[in-house]
Amino acid sequence: MGYDAIDYLPYDFANRRHIGPSPAEMAEMLATLGVSKLDDLIDETVPEAIRQAVPLDFGKAMSERELLYHMRQVASQNTVLTSLIGMGYHGTVTPPAIQRNIFENPAWYTAYTPYQPEISQGRLEALLNYQTMISDLTGLEIANASLLDEATACAEAMTMAQRVAKSKATAFFVDENCHPQNISVMKTRAAPLGIEVIVGDVDDMDPDAVFGAIFQYPGTYGHLRDFTDDIARLHAAKAIAIMSADPMALCLLKEPGAMGADIAVGSTQRFGVPLGYGGPHAAYMATKDDYKRAMPGRIVGISIDSHGNKAYRLSLQTREQHIRREKATSNVCTAQALLAVMAGFYAVFHGPKGLRAIAQRIHRKTVRLAKGLEAAGFKVEPDAYFDTITVDVGLLQRGVLQAAVREGLNLRPVGSTKVGITLDEKSRPATIEAVWRAFGLVKQDDDLTPEYRLPDALVRKSGYLQHDVFHMNRAETEMMRYMRRLADRDLALDRAMIPLGSCTMKLNSAAEMMPVSWREFADIHPYVPDDQVRGYHDLIADLNAKLCTITGYDAISMQPNSGAQGEYAGLLSIAGYHRANEQGHRNICLIPVNAHGTNPASAQMVGWKVVAVKCDTNGSIDLDDFRAKAEQHSENLAGTMITYPSTHGVFETEVKEVCAITHQHGGQVYIDGANMNAMVGLSRPGDLGGDVSHLNLHKTFCIPHGGGGPGMGPIGVKAHLIPHLPGHPLDGEGAVSAAPFGSPSLLPISWAYCLMMGGEGLTQATRVAILNANYIATRLTGAYDVLYRGHKGRVAHECILDVRPFEKSAGVTVEDIAKRLMDAGFHAPTMSWPVAGTLMVEPTESETKAELDRFCDAMLAIREEIRAIEAGDMDRDVNPLKLAPHTMEDLVKEWDRPYSREQGCFPPGAFRVDKYWPPVNRVDNAYGDRHLVCTCPPMEDYQEAAE
Amino acid sequence: MGYDAIDYLPYDFANRRHIGPSPAEMAEMLATLGVSKLDDLIDETVPEAIRQAVPLDFGKAMSERELLYHMRQVASQNTVLTSLIGMGYHGTVTPPAIQRNIFENPAWYTAYTPYQPEISQGRLEALLNYQTMISDLTGLEIANASLLDEATACAEAMTMAQRVAKSKATAFFVDENCHPQNISVMKTRAAPLGIEVIVGDVDDMDPDAVFGAIFQYPGTYGHLRDFTDDIARLHAAKAIAIMSADPMALCLLKEPGAMGADIAVGSTQRFGVPLGYGGPHAAYMATKDDYKRAMPGRIVGISIDSHGNKAYRLSLQTREQHIRREKATSNVCTAQALLAVMAGFYAVFHGPKGLRAIAQRIHRKTVRLAKGLEAAGFKVEPDAYFDTITVDVGLLQRGVLQAAVREGLNLRPVGSTKVGITLDEKSRPATIEAVWRAFGLVKQDDDLTPEYRLPDALVRKSGYLQHDVFHMNRAETEMMRYMRRLADRDLALDRAMIPLGSCTMKLNSAAEMMPVSWREFADIHPYVPDDQVRGYHDLIADLNAKLCTITGYDAISMQPNSGAQGEYAGLLSIAGYHRANEQGHRNICLIPVNAHGTNPASAQMVGWKVVAVKCDTNGSIDLDDFRAKAEQHSENLAGTMITYPSTHGVFETEVKEVCAITHQHGGQVYIDGANMNAMVGLSRPGDLGGDVSHLNLHKTFCIPHGGGGPGMGPIGVKAHLIPHLPGHPLDGEGAVSAAPFGSPSLLPISWAYCLMMGGEGLTQATRVAILNANYIATRLTGAYDVLYRGHKGRVAHECILDVRPFEKSAGVTVEDIAKRLMDAGFHAPTMSWPVAGTLMVEPTESETKAELDRFCDAMLAIREEIRAIEAGDMDRDVNPLKLAPHTMEDLVKEWDRPYSREQGCFPPGAFRVDKYWPPVNRVDNAYGDRHLVCTCPPMEDYQEAAE
Repeated sequence: MGYDAIDYLPYDFANRRHIGPSPAEMAEMLATLGVSKLDDLIDETVPEAIRQAVPLDFGKAMSERELLYHMRQVASQNTVLTSLIGMGYHGTVTPPAIQRNIFENPAWYTAYTPYQPEISQGRLEALLNYQTMISDLTGLEIANASLLDEATACAEAMTMAQRVAKSKATAFFVDENCHPQNISVMKTRAAPLGIEVIVGDVDDMDPDAVFGAIFQYPGTYGHLRDFTDDIARLHAAKAIAIMSADPMALCLLKEPGAMGADIAVGSTQRFGVPLGYGGPHAAYMATKDDYKRAMPGRIVGISIDSHGNKAYRLSLQTREQHIRREKATSNVCTAQALLAVMAGFYAVFHGPKGLRAIAQRIHRKTVRLAKGLEAAGFKVEPDAYFDTITVDVGLLQRGVLQAAVREGLNLRPVGSTKVGITLDEKSRPATIEAVWRAFGLVKQDDDLTPEYRLPDALVRKSGYLQHDVFHMNRAETEMMRYMRRLADRDLALDRAMIPLGSCTMKLNSAAEMMPVSWREFADIHPYVPDDQVRGYHDLIADLNAKLCTITGYDAISMQPNSGAQGEYAGLLSIAGYHRANEQGHRNICLIPVNAHGTNPASAQMVGWKVVAVKCDTNGSIDLDDFRAKAEQHSENLAGTMITYPSTHGVFETEVKEVCAITHQHGGQVYIDGANMNAMVGLSRPGDLGGDVSHLNLHKTFCIPHGGGGPGMGPIGVKAHLIPHLPGHPLDGEGAVSAAPFGSPSLLPISWAYCLMMGGEGLTQATRVAILNANYIATRLTGAYDVLYRGHKGRVAHECILDVRPFEKSAGVTVEDIAKRLMDAGFHAPTMSWPVAGTLMVEPTESETKAELDRFCDAMLAIREEIRAIEAGDMDRDVNPLKLAPHTMEDLVKEWDRPYSREQGCFPPGAFRVDKYWPPVNRVDNAYGDRHLVCTCPPMEDYQEAAE
Repeated sequence: MGYDAIDYLPYDFANRRHIGPSPAEMAEMLATLGVSKLDDLIDETVPEAIRQAVPLDFGKAMSERELLYHMRQVASQNTVLTSLIGMGYHGTVTPPAIQRNIFENPAWYTAYTPYQPEISQGRLEALLNYQTMISDLTGLEIANASLLDEATACAEAMTMAQRVAKSKATAFFVDENCHPQNISVMKTRAAPLGIEVIVGDVDDMDPDAVFGAIFQYPGTYGHLRDFTDDIARLHAAKAIAIMSADPMALCLLKEPGAMGADIAVGSTQRFGVPLGYGGPHAAYMATKDDYKRAMPGRIVGISIDSHGNKAYRLSLQTREQHIRREKATSNVCTAQALLAVMAGFYAVFHGPKGLRAIAQRIHRKTVRLAKGLEAAGFKVEPDAYFDTITVDVGLLQRGVLQAAVREGLNLRPVGSTKVGITLDEKSRPATIEAVWRAFGLVKQDDDLTPEYRLPDALVRKSGYLQHDVFHMNRAETEMMRYMRRLADRDLALDRAMIPLGSCTMKLNSAAEMMPVSWREFADIHPYVPDDQVRGYHDLIADLNAKLCTITGYDAISMQPNSGAQGEYAGLLSIAGYHRANEQGHRNICLIPVNAHGTNPASAQMVGWKVVAVKCDTNGSIDLDDFRAKAEQHSENLAGTMITYPSTHGVFETEVKEVCAITHQHGGQVYIDGANMNAMVGLSRPGDLGGDVSHLNLHKTFCIPHGGGGPGMGPIGVKAHLIPHLPGHPLDGEGAVSAAPFGSPSLLPISWAYCLMMGGEGLTQATRVAILNANYIATRLTGAYDVLYRGHKGRVAHECILDVRPFEKSAGVTVEDIAKRLMDAGFHAPTMSWPVAGTLMVEPTESETKAELDRFCDAMLAIREEIRAIEAGDMDRDVNPLKLAPHTMEDLVKEWDRPYSREQGCFPPGAFRVDKYWPPVNRVDNAYGDRHLVCTCPPMEDYQEAAE
C-alpha cells in the first residue's frame, strides 16, 4: 500500500457534505443524460451569454472543525450582557426539553410548510396549540399561526383594519406609547398606501378622523391603561381598535378581547424563544370571528379526512396559494412556524398555572426594584406597571447606563434624561441588586410582602388555557413523548427528499445549525450598544461581501425577514430612488404572468399598478408584448419584476434584453432570487441587468424551513439604490422589520455554508442541482411530458411535469398524484404552480442518486397505475390514486378494494421496514372551510365534527 | 382573580420534571391502593426499623435555569487546553451530524441494552457496523460490541488468555511499552487470581514462562515493532498473544491479525468520542474465530426471525444473562453501546478512504513536528513512529512542560528527563508551531514533501471496511436519514415506559444532559494537571458529599465505570482491609441465591469462594441458613453480599441482623446498590450495617442507559475501608479503571439531578417510585399473582408477576408475554429474573398514571388472551401471544389467522396513529447461535441465511 490518498482531505468531506451524488453516481447520471461530463451539461443548460466572467473564489474552504473553531472566535466578539431594555424583547428560559427536542431536532426544523396536511399532522397540532394559546390570552376568537415580527404584525393589522373598517377615514392613529420600531414599520407601510399615520397621546385621539387605532399594552415605557373607553369611542366612529399586547402581561392583565379590541398583535418571543439579536421570533395576530376572513397569514384549522376522522389542515388556504395578486394589501406568506411551535410548547410545558406564576414573579420583582429606587428618592414612572418602569435621572442618564454596563446590564435610554428598565423571567435578586448599584444604591432592606402594582380594573378576570393539552403533567417524560409523537407524524427532510419546485429543500447541516444555539448568538437583545455585537457585525459584513460577490450587487440589506419582505423592501428602494430623482410619479410595474404570486402583491404594497406581460409557449417572457407594454407605459414605468431562471425552470436568453428595455424606459429591474440555487457561481443577477434582488437564505443558503418559517429575505442592490435601503427601525421610519438585521441569529447558518463550501463548492452545488433536475427530467421523459426546456432540451434546477392530460384520460388529478406519492414516502412536488394542473420538481444538489431513483420509480409506477385506468383495467374512482394516501387503518380494516393491500400501501419507492405512514387519509378541504375551527375544541366536539 | 398561585414556583417545575403522576393522579392512585396519603403507603412499605433518621436536605433545589447557570460557573473552572499527552486518549472531531443525531438524541441515548432484539434492530445494526469495523481494522475474525475502557479490556484479555491458553504457566507478560494505566489495571486484576505479571522488554520475554503476553501498538512512547516473531514464539510455547492497538494507527499499519495475534484490544475514543476527562468511551476486543466463545462482553450477530427474514440479535446471549457466577473470571455485563455506536458511525461517515486520509495527516504532521525538533538538535525517539514521539530534554523537562502550558498545550512528562508528544486529528499547523515554541524554537522552514516514518514492513497491505455501509456517499443528507431510520426501528424511553425490574429506566432530562456536550467537560484529557480541572474536582467533591449523605457512607470512589466494576472494586476494598488486618486468609463470601449474577462473579474475581445462602418462601434471606453458614465459615468469612431492597422487591426487616451476624464473624458487608431507587431519602445502606455499596448512577441518578452503556458504578465505603479504595491509575497498581474518575463526563448528569431535585425532591421520587410499583401491583392483582410482598402486602419499587402457571394452563411462556407486550408498544419487563418464568416490573417515578394504566391495560388484555386459550376458545399454538410480535408485514400479507388483524396488531394499550411497529417478527435465537455471523456479511449472504 502506498500513500495514494493524500489528496483526499477533510476539505472534501465538508464540500461533499452538501453534494448528494457520489462522483461514481454522477458519472452514471451523466451517462443517462448522454453527456460525458458535468461541464458539458452545464454548457447545454446555462447560456454562455448569461454566465459570469470570473469563478467564485472565497479562498480555501473550511472543514467542519475549522468552521466551528472560527465561529467560536467570532462568537466571542459578542458580549452577552443581561438586557433589561424591553421594547418587546425579553430574556426568557427556553426549556431544555424544547431546545433539544424541537429547536435542535431536524424532524422539526427541516419540515416544510404544512400545505400537504396528511403528512403534517404533527406540526399542525402544535400550531393549533399555539393558536389556542393566543386566542385564550388575547380573549379573541381566532388567531393565526404567526407573523414575522411584532412590527410587521402591527403594519398588517393596520392594513387589515383599513380593509374591514366601515369608517372611510384614511388616517390611522398610533399610540405614542407604541414601541418605536412598531411605529417606524407602520409608517413605512402606510406611506405608499396613502394612509396618514397620526402618532399621539391616546387622550388626544379623534376617532372620527381615523379608520383605526393601535395601542401598546403595556406601553413601551411601562404604562398600563384600560382602553375599554377608547375602543368604545372608536367603535362609535366605525373604526377598528388594535392592541399590541405582551402575552406574558396578559397572563395577569385584562385581555384585549375584554376591552372590546378588534385585533390583537404582539410577539411571543418571551415564551421560550431566544432573543437572537432580534429574531427569528413568532409574532401573533388574533381577531374577532367576524374578521377572520380578512386576517393575513396562515390559520390552522380542523377538518375531517375521507373516513370522517379528525384531521388538521391550513384553513382558508386558497387565499394564500392564490395570493391576492393585484388586489393584495399584504404579501405575507411566510410564518414563523418553528418559533410558534416553540412558544406553544412553552405554554404546554408550563400550563396556565405556571405561566401565571412566571408573570407574577416578574411583576413582583419589578415592584421590588421600583420600591428600592423610590426609597432612594428616584422618580419612578408610571404608578402602575407590569414589568417596565422608567426612571428620571436627569443629567445622569449616560452615567447610569455606563454603570449598568459595568454591572453586566443593558438598560434603555429614554429621551435624554430617563432610563427604562424591564424585568423578565430570568431576572434574579442579583439582577435587581445590580440595577440598584448602577443607580448608586446599596442593597435595600427587603420588604418581603408580595406587592402588586396592577390597577384593580386591569386585573384579569377570565381564565385561559383550559384545554387538556395545557394540563398535561409537568413531567418531562410525558412532554418528551408528546414532542416525539408529533414529530413522527410528519414527513420532513430527515426522512425523505422534498422535491418542491421553487422551494429548494436542501440539507441544513448539523455543523451549520449548531452556532444558532450558542448564547453568544442567542442571548443578545436587538438594541444593545454596537460594541457588544462586534462578532455579529463582522459576520454580517463578511456574509454581505460574499453575497455581493455571488450576486453581482454592491450592497446587501439583511433587514427583510422573509422572501416577500425582501420583494417589498426592494421595491421600496426603487420607489425611493425614483422619488429622489423627481420621478415619484412612476407607478407602473411590469410583471410576467408566470410570476410568483407575491410579486404583484408586493408591487401593490408600494402603491404601484401591475401590468401583466404575456409568456410564450416555452414559458419565457413574450418579448414583443414586453416591449410594447414598456413603451406604452414609458412615462410611468417604475420597474419590472422578473424571476431568473424563470419560474418555468428555464434559463431564458432574453433576460438581458428585458433589463435593457426596462432601463431604456426609465424603469428599474427587480430580479426575484427564488431560483438562486440554479445560479450561484454560474450567473449573477447583478450582471444580467438587475438593480435589486432578494435572496431566500432559507432556500439557497441552508437556513431550514422550520415547518413553515423562519425565513430570511435580504436584498442586494446596485450602488445607486444604496441610499434607499431600509432604515434603522429606531430612526423614525423607513424600516421594514422590527430589528435592524431582521432575524440575525439565522445568519451563522448561511455564513457557515459559504465558508465550508468555498466558491468552488458553492458552484459545484449549483451544477449538481442542475444535474439532479435533468436526471429526473430524463428518467421521467416518456412517462410524463416535461414542460419548458431550454434551447438544448435541458431544464435548469427544476422541471415541470405535465399531468393535465390524465384528468381526461383517467380522471386523475395533480392532487391524486401528490397524495399517491405519500404512499411511497414522499412529499409531493409543488402542485399547480406556476402552471395549473402540473407538478414542479426540484430535487436540489443534496439528494443522492439512490433517492432520485426512488422518486423516479415512484413516479413511473404512478404512471403505470394511470395507464391501467386508461386501459380500463382499473376503476376510475376506486383505485390507489383516488384513495391515496393509504393509512395503517386502511390496512387493518376489511379490505374491499380491487387492488391488494400490498399494491395500495407499498407502491414502488416505499420503504418496507422504514415505511412512513400518513396518520390520516385524504383531508377534506371544503369541509374545513365550511366549519372553521381554529383552536383546540373540547374533546366532544371532535366527535361531532366526525359525524 | 387574586394572586393565589404565588407558591407555584419554578422550583416546582424542576422538582416535578422527574415525577410522572400529577398530584391529582397520585390521589386517584392512592385511592386505588386504599390508602389516604402517600406517607401511609410508605409507612406500610418501608419498615420503621430501617428508615433513616434525618430527612435529606441539600438546601434549596435549583430550577433548570439556576442549574445551568451554576453549571456554567463550575465548567468555567475547567481550563480547556490542547492535550498532546497521548496514552490512548486523543483529540478527535465528533462529526456534528453524529453529535446532534446520536449523542444528543434521546431516541439513542434513552434506549436499553438490546436484549429484546425485535425492538432493538436499529442499534443492533449500528453495533454490527462497529464490530465489522473492529474486525476489519484488527484483522481478526470476530469482535465484541465494546468493553468499558482500554485498561479493563487488557485485563479481560489477560484472563481470557488464561482460559484459552494450552500453556499451563501462571505468569503473564506485559510489554513495558504498554500505557501505564493498562499495566496498573492488569496488575490489580491479576493479583487475586494468582497471576504473576511480568513487566519488561519484549526482547527479554520468556514465552515458556507465561500463558500469554500483551504488546502495545504503537507503544506508549511511540515505538513501532513488528510483533510477528514474538507472537510466533508465544504460539510455539502454547501461549496467547494479545495486542493493544490504536485503531487509528491500524488504518496505516500492519494489523494484529497479520502478525498472528490471538486477541486485540484497544480504545475507539479517537473515532469521534469526546475525551470527557477519561470517559465514557468504547474499548474494543477482537479475537480469532476459535476463541469466540471465550470472549467476554456482548456480541451482536445475525439470525433470522420466525418468517425467515434477517434479524440482528445479541449472540451467545445466555452467557451473559446467566453470567458464570461461581465459575466466572469476568463479571463484564455493561458495554459502552452509545459510544461504540458513535465510533461506528464515525467510520461510516468517513469510510475507509477518509479514515486513511485522517491517519495519514496525523502521521505527516507528526513527522513535520519531529523534523523541526531534530533540526534544532533535539534527540527524538523513536526512529519510526505513527503519531507519538518522545524528546529528551534533560533538566529542562519542567520548563518545557510549563512553556507548553503557556502555549495552551499539555505535553506528557516521561520519566524525569523526557517529554512525550502525541498528535491527533485536531492538530493544526499552529499546534505544531506552538509545540516548537514550547521547546524554544521559532517556526521552522517547511519541508513540504510529504514524508513518512513508518517502517516498510509495518505498512498495512490489506484493505478494510469494504462493506456497503462504509461506502455510503459522504453526503450528510444520506447519513442523517440512515441515523433516523435506525433510531426509528428501536423502542426507547422517548416513546414508552420501559418497565424493566432492577434496571430503573427513568427520565434522563434534557437539562441534565446538556452540560455533557460542553467543551469544558468534553474536551479534557484524563491526565491533565489538576489545576486545569478545578471545576471537575469541585463537582466531584460535591457529588461525593451528597452521595455520602444519601447512602450513609463516609467516602465515595468514582473510579468504577459500571455496576459490576463497582462490586469488584468494593470487594477489593474489603479484601485489602482484611489483608491490612492480617486476615488475608478470609476468602468465603456468603451470597443469597437470589443475588444478581454479577455478585458471585465479582467474588470470584477477587479470589473468594462463594457460599450460597437460601431464601425463604417470601424471597427474603433464610436467616437460619445464613446464621449457620456464617458460623460454619467464621474463621474464613470475608464478607456477605446482599441486595437491598432484595432482588425480590421487598424491604426485608432482617437486613440489620444479616449485617450484624456478618460483622460478628469478622466479615464485611457489601450491599448491592442496584435497588437504590427504592431507598434514596428513606433508608441508607450505611445505616443498615453495610460497609460498602456501589451505586448505579445510570439507574438511580439519571445517567441514560445509552442502549447498553455507558454506566457508572461508584462505590461508597465506611471510613475503615477508605485506605483500600481503588488507587490512581498512574500509581502503578490498584486501579480498576483506566481513568482516575472512571467516566467523569457523565457526572454532571447525576449532580444536576441532585441539585434540581434537592433532598425533598429526591425523597419524593423514591416515594413515587414505590407508589407507581404498588399501583401496578394492585391493578394487576387478580389477573396475575404478585410474588413476594412485604409484611403489609406492599411491594417496594418493583414487583414480580408470576406467569409460570400459564405455561401449563395455556402453553404460554414468559417470552410470549414479553413479545406480546411489543404489540402494545412496550418493552418487556425483566424476564425470568430473579425467578425463572416470571416478569419483574419497575415503573420508576417518571411515569404518569396514564402510562401506567396503558401498561396495565395491556397486561390485563394479555391475561384475557391467556384465558381464551385456557378455555379452549383459542388455539394453543396459533394465537396472538405465540405469533407476537406482529409486524407491518403480517398486516400486508394474506391473513390466515384465527384472530383478526385488529386483535393481533392493536391490542389494548397500543397507540393507534402513533403505533410502534417492531421491524421483525420473533427472532430465532438458536439459529443465530448455530450460525454465528457477527460482522456485516456481503449482501448475498443475507439471502442464504434466510433460506
